[in-house]
Amino acid sequence: MKNSYTQKEQYYGEYLGLDKILEAQLPESEARGIDAHDEMLFIIIHQTYELWFKQIMHELNSIIDIFQATSINDNAPSLQIAVHRTNRIVEIWKLLVAQVDVLETMTPMDFLDFRDLLTPASGFQSVQFRELETKLGLKMENRHEQRYYEHQLCPAHVTQIKALDDQESFLDLLEQWLERTPIWGLENWGGFEVPEGAKENIHPFWATYRHTFESGLVSEELAAIEMSDFDRLILGEGEQNTRLSAASLQAALFITLYRDYPLMQMPYQLLSKWLEIDELMATWRYRHMSMVRRMIGMRVGTGGSTGASYLKGAMEKHHIFGDFTRITTYLIPRAKLPKLPPVLERKLLFTTV
Amino acid sequence: MKNSYTQKEQYYGEYLGLDKILEAQLPESEARGIDAHDEMLFIIIHQTYELWFKQIMHELNSIIDIFQATSINDNAPSLQIAVHRTNRIVEIWKLLVAQVDVLETMTPMDFLDFRDLLTPASGFQSVQFRELETKLGLKMENRHEQRYYEHQLCPAHVTQIKALDDQESFLDLLEQWLERTPIWGLENWGGFEVPEGAKENIHPFWATYRHTFESGLVSEELAAIEMSDFDRLILGEGEQNTRLSAASLQAALFITLYRDYPLMQMPYQLLSKWLEIDELMATWRYRHMSMVRRMIGMRVGTGGSTGASYLKGAMEKHHIFGDFTRITTYLIPRAKLPKLPPVLERKLLFTTV
Amino acid sequence: MKNSYTQKEQYYGEYLGLDKILEAQLPESEARGIDAHDEMLFIIIHQTYELWFKQIMHELNSIIDIFQATSINDNAPSLQIAVHRTNRIVEIWKLLVAQVDVLETMTPMDFLDFRDLLTPASGFQSVQFRELETKLGLKMENRHEQRYYEHQLCPAHVTQIKALDDQESFLDLLEQWLERTPIWGLENWGGFEVPEGAKENIHPFWATYRHTFESGLVSEELAAIEMSDFDRLILGEGEQNTRLSAASLQAALFITLYRDYPLMQMPYQLLSKWLEIDELMATWRYRHMSMVRRMIGMRVGTGGSTGASYLKGAMEKHHIFGDFTRITTYLIPRAKLPKLPPVLERKLLFTTV
Amino acid sequence: MKNSYTQKEQYYGEYLGLDKILEAQLPESEARGIDAHDEMLFIIIHQTYELWFKQIMHELNSIIDIFQATSINDNAPSLQIAVHRTNRIVEIWKLLVAQVDVLETMTPMDFLDFRDLLTPASGFQSVQFRELETKLGLKMENRHEQRYYEHQLCPAHVTQIKALDDQESFLDLLEQWLERTPIWGLENWGGFEVPEGAKENIHPFWATYRHTFESGLVSEELAAIEMSDFDRLILGEGEQNTRLSAASLQAALFITLYRDYPLMQMPYQLLSKWLEIDELMATWRYRHMSMVRRMIGMRVGTGGSTGASYLKGAMEKHHIFGDFTRITTYLIPRAKLPKLPPVLERKLLFTTV
Repeated sequence: MKNSYTQKEQYYGEYLGLDKILEAQLPESEARGIDAHDEMLFIIIHQTYELWFKQIMHELNSIIDIFQATSINDNAPSLQIAVHRTNRIVEIWKLLVAQVDVLETMTPMDFLDFRDLLTPASGFQSVQFRELETKLGLKMENRHEQRYYEHQLCPAHVTQIKALDDQESFLDLLEQWLERTPIWGLENWGGFEVPEGAKENIHPFWATYRHTFESGLVSEELAAIEMSDFDRLILGEGEQNTRLSAASLQAALFITLYRDYPLMQMPYQLLSKWLEIDELMATWRYRHMSMVRRMIGMRVGTGGSTGASYLKGAMEKHHIFGDFTRITTYLIPRAKLPKLPPVLERKLLFTTV
Repeated sequence: MKNSYTQKEQYYGEYLGLDKILEAQLPESEARGIDAHDEMLFIIIHQTYELWFKQIMHELNSIIDIFQATSINDNAPSLQIAVHRTNRIVEIWKLLVAQVDVLETMTPMDFLDFRDLLTPASGFQSVQFRELETKLGLKMENRHEQRYYEHQLCPAHVTQIKALDDQESFLDLLEQWLERTPIWGLENWGGFEVPEGAKENIHPFWATYRHTFESGLVSEELAAIEMSDFDRLILGEGEQNTRLSAASLQAALFITLYRDYPLMQMPYQLLSKWLEIDELMATWRYRHMSMVRRMIGMRVGTGGSTGASYLKGAMEKHHIFGDFTRITTYLIPRAKLPKLPPVLERKLLFTTV
Repeated sequence: MKNSYTQKEQYYGEYLGLDKILEAQLPESEARGIDAHDEMLFIIIHQTYELWFKQIMHELNSIIDIFQATSINDNAPSLQIAVHRTNRIVEIWKLLVAQVDVLETMTPMDFLDFRDLLTPASGFQSVQFRELETKLGLKMENRHEQRYYEHQLCPAHVTQIKALDDQESFLDLLEQWLERTPIWGLENWGGFEVPEGAKENIHPFWATYRHTFESGLVSEELAAIEMSDFDRLILGEGEQNTRLSAASLQAALFITLYRDYPLMQMPYQLLSKWLEIDELMATWRYRHMSMVRRMIGMRVGTGGSTGASYLKGAMEKHHIFGDFTRITTYLIPRAKLPKLPPVLERKLLFTTV
Repeated sequence: MKNSYTQKEQYYGEYLGLDKILEAQLPESEARGIDAHDEMLFIIIHQTYELWFKQIMHELNSIIDIFQATSINDNAPSLQIAVHRTNRIVEIWKLLVAQVDVLETMTPMDFLDFRDLLTPASGFQSVQFRELETKLGLKMENRHEQRYYEHQLCPAHVTQIKALDDQESFLDLLEQWLERTPIWGLENWGGFEVPEGAKENIHPFWATYRHTFESGLVSEELAAIEMSDFDRLILGEGEQNTRLSAASLQAALFITLYRDYPLMQMPYQLLSKWLEIDELMATWRYRHMSMVRRMIGMRVGTGGSTGASYLKGAMEKHHIFGDFTRITTYLIPRAKLPKLPPVLERKLLFTTV
C-alpha cells in the first residue's frame, strides 16, 4: 500500500487551519520570562469558549433568518429546523457549563502567578458574548451596571454593540411570530359558555380560562396570587411590567396549554428549549461567579471590575426569556382545560382522510 | 467615568489572538457555493479538540520533565505537582467525552451535505493526537493496523511520529521511577516468617504475599486464576507477556497495597489517575466509534478508513497502562496484608518528634 | 405562627415510605461483625439503580400501551406523549451512566473487604433489568451465553422472564406500527420517472431511490458497499439477516429521509431517541465492564460469572435497535431526495386553508 | 450445567431488600383513581435523593469519628481516609446536581395533575437533609427564615434537629483540628527579618506576610481591600464577623500557601474538597430553586412555602465553609512566599536518610 498523500487535496491540518489555531497561544508570562505554567490553560479555555460562541452565533443567525420571514409556513421545514438548531445550542451550553470544571483545576495561587500580567484584559471584553446577548434580546438599558459595562469595552466595540441593540433581536422576532398566531381572530371562535361571574368584555376563551383558574385557587394561594397580575400579563390591562406584549404571552400560554395538538408541538418544543437556554446561561454565570469568588476573593477583576459582585448582579438581571417563565403561575390542570371549538381544533390537526 | 480603554496595553481579544482563532473557519461548502449549514460545527468541534490536545500536551510535557530527573525527591513539590496536573488531564478528558454529545446533534443526513467535500481529510490525521499517544507510550508496533495508520499521514508526519517513538515515553519514565523504589534492596527487610509450603528463593515479602494470596482463593477462583501468571507478572519468571518490567509492577502492587502510608499516598493517586485517563481515552474512542457507526454506517471514513471497524480495533488495543490493571487480580484484603518490618515502616512515615 | 403539623394529612416521610426505604440497608459485614465501610455504598447504589429501573419500566409500560392500539391517530396526543416519555428514559439512562462515577470511588481493596460475603449474589440477578431488556425486545435466544444467563437466576425468575419473552415486545409493536404506514399502498403514488437502468419490478419510489443511491457511490465505497445488502435489508429480497421486516425498515428509512415534513417529525424524534437509548445502554454496559475489570481483574464475578468477559460479550450482542442503525449506510444527500408526488405530500402536511 | 440456585444463601433481590424498596411507591393519585402518570417520577426521584443522603451521612459520620480524636496522627491512615471519603461525597453531590435534569422532564402541567394531592408534604420536610446540614455546621440561628423552617417540620423532628444543633458539628471539629496545628508554638520559629514598617506585636511570620501582601497591592486594589479586614480575619483583632476562629483561619491560610510540602498535601486536599462540596450544595440549591420557579411560578410550595423565594434566600445564606473562601483575598504569589525556617521545614517533610 503506497502512501497516497501526495495527490491529496484536503488534509486535516490545513482544512482546520491548525497553523493559525495552534500558534495563537502567546502567554504573557513566557514573553517576560516568568514561570507561570497555568497561563496556557487560561488562554486555551477562553479560546475554546470563543470558538463555541462563534458556533452559537452561527446557529442563532440561521434561526433569526427563519423568523425574519413575514410568515412561517407551518408546513415548511423551517420550524423543525429552528427547533433542531435551538437544541444544538442547548447542548453547547451544557458543555460550556461543564467546561468550568476544567478551569477549576487552576488554584488561586496558580492564577496569582500571572494574574497581574493580564491587566486590564478581562472576560468582560468578549465582544462575541456581548453580541450574543444583544442578538438574543438583552437591551443595553436592561444590563446590570450599564456604565461599568460600557467602560470595559473599547469605543469601537461599544459602537458595534449599540448598533446591534437597535436591530430586531431574536426575542423581538419571537414576539412577533407569537403575535401573528391567527387563532384569536377567528370569528366563529364562539361556543364558549362563559360562566356566570366571569370577567366581561374579554375574549370568551380568556373569560372562561380566567374564571377556571381563579376558581381553582386554594385559600393559601388566593393570598399570594393577584388576579390583577394575570390581567396585566395575559390580558394586557393596566400598566405593563413585562418586556413582551400581552398578545405574544397569550399565544405562549395557549401553546403551553394545548401542546398535545400536532400544530402546537414544534412551537412548544421551541419555547421550552429557549427557556432551557436562558437557564443554562444563568447557571453558567452562576458557576462563573462562584469560580471568580473562589479565585480572587474580594479583589477586583483583571479588568478593574468588582468581579464576583458584578457577576452576581448580572446573574439576577440578565434573564432574557423571563416573561415566559411568569406564565407558569397561571397554568391549570389538563383536566380543566376549556374544550376548543371544532373550527379551531381542525386548524390544529393534520389533514386526515 | 471616562472610558479608559486608550491607555490599556492588554485587551482581551488581542491577548487571546482572536483574530487568528475566529478567522480560521473556512467551510469547503461555502467556498463551493454549497449549502451545508453543519460544516461549521464540524470544523469548530475539531478545532476545540485540537486546542485541548495542545493543553494536554502542555501538561504532559511538564510531567515528563519531572520524571526525567534521575531521582524525584519525595520532599520536593515535584510529585504533588505531577498529581495535580495529571488530575487536570483527567478533567479535560471528561470534557472531551462530554463534547461528543454536541457532535451527535449532527444527523447523518446533515453530514452527507458536505461529507464528500472533506475527502480525504480525516480525524486520523490529527498529528497532535498521534503524538500524544506516542508520548504516553503507545508504540507504533502495538498500534492496530499499523500500515493503515501510516498510510493516513503525510510522510513528514510519519517521520515525526517515528522519531518520537524512539524517545523515552512517559510510560518508560514511570516504569523507571517505579523500579527505582529503594525498598526492595533494604538489607534488614527480613523478619518475615515465611509460611511453610511457600515458594522458595524469592524475596521473603513476596513469598509471604504469594502464599497469602493463594491460600485465600476459593474453589471457583482456583480454576480461573493461574499462579504461574502471578509468577510471570510480579516475580518476572518465565517468558514475559507484559510491556512493563516485573520490578516496576512489584512497586505498583506495593503502592496499591500500602497506600495508607503517607509516603505512598501521592504515588497511589498518581497511578490511579493515569488508569482513569486510560479509561477515559478508551471511553472516548468508544463513543467516537459509536458515533461514526451511527453517522456513516458501513461506508468508509473520509480518509478511506474502514471507519467504525478501525476504531473498534483501536479501542481494544490502545490501552497504554493496561499492565497496571492486571495487578488487580492479585490483591488481597487489607486485613491479611503482611505487616511491614519497623525499618521499612519508618521510611514510609513523616518525621515525628 | 403556630405549628400546623398536627392537622396535616400528608407528611413527606410517610408519603415517600421512608421508613421502608431507609431501613432496607443491611450490610452483611455488619451482621458478621466485620469492618467493611464501603458495603453501604454498594447496597445503596444498587438500590438506586433498581428504583430507576422501576421508573423506566413505568415509562416503557405506558409507551407500550400507546403502541398496542391497532392504530395510532396522528392527531391524538399519543405519539407526542410517547416521544416525551421516551425522552425521559434518555435522561434517566444518562444519569445511570454518570452514576458509575460514584461507584468508581470504591477501590478494589475496599471491595475486597466484603466481596466474599456477597457470594453468590450478583448484579446478573436483577430481575427488573432482565425484564426491561426482554420487554424492549431482547429475546432469550439472542442473549450472549444464554445458558449461563439462565443459570444465574432462580427458577421462578427464569420462568417469569421466559413468559415475557413470548409476549409482544416494544420492538415488535414498533415494527408493526412502522409496517402500518399507509403511504406505500397509495394507488396514485406514481409520477416517478424511473431512471433507465434502474432495478425493475419494485415500487417506483424505491427503484428511483436505489438508483440514486448507487449512482452516488464513489469508487472506494463501491468496493465496501454491496447493493445486494440494500436489496435484502430494504427490499426484503433473498435470505433475511435482520430482526425487523423490510416493510418496517422501509418506513424507518422514509421517515429519516423526509423528516422535514410535519407528519414525519414526531416519528423521527421517536426513532432517534430509541437509538440514543440503545447507545446509552451500551455505554452503560461498557463502563460497567471496565469498572468490573478494574475491580476484580481476572477473578470471577460474585455470581460465579466470568465477570468482565461476560459483560463484553453482552455489550456486543445486546443492541436491540441495531437494525435501524444499519439503514444509515443507505442515506443520500437531501439535495438528491426524490421529490414526492403531490397526493402523498398532502398527506404529510397540516390542513391549511 | 444445572441450576445451582437452591443451595444459594445470598440472592441479589433479598440482599438489597428489593421487596421493601420496590413496594414503597404509593402514588396518591392512584389511591384516588386520578390519572397522574408523573407522580411515580416525583416519588422515585425523591426516594433516590433520600438514599443518597443516607450514603452521605454514612461517609460524614465516619469522617466525624476521625476528627473526634483528640489528635490525628499524621502517620496513621486517618487523614487519607477522610480525604478519600470526602471525595466520594463530592462525586455524590455531582450526581445529585445532574439528577435535576431528570426531574426537569416533568412539565409544569404534568405536575399540576397531582400537585394538590401532596399538600402539605414538602421537600422542606426532609429530615435527613436538615440533619446533614446541621451535622456539617449550619446552625439553626443562621438559617434563612428560621421560624418558617421550624414551622415545616413536625415537633418531633424539630426537637431532633435542635438536639443535633447542640452537638459538635464537623465544622467545629475541623476548626479544632486546624487550631491544634502545632507550628505556631515553636520557640525557634524566629529567623524572620521582619521588614521595616511592618505591623508590630504579632508573630514575626504574620508580620512578614502581612507586609508582603500589603506591598503587593496595586492602586485599584488598595481601594477595595481593607487591611483591617485582614487583621480581623487572620490576626483575630477587633470585633469578629467570622464563624471560625482566627487561629483556625491562620492554619487554613498556611496550608493553602505551603501545600507543596508533603505534610500539607492531605490537609490541603481536605480543605479544597469541602469547599467544593459547599459549592456543589449551593449549585444544587440554585438548580432546585430555578426548577421550582419554572414549575410553580409565583404559587406557594406544597408545604405552604413561598417556594422559589425561600430557596433563593437559603442559597445565599447556607454556605457552611464560607469563611475559608474569604482567605482567598489574602493570598500572595508563590514567588513571594516567606521562606520557612529549617526547624519548621523539617517538620513538614518525610524522614529522609
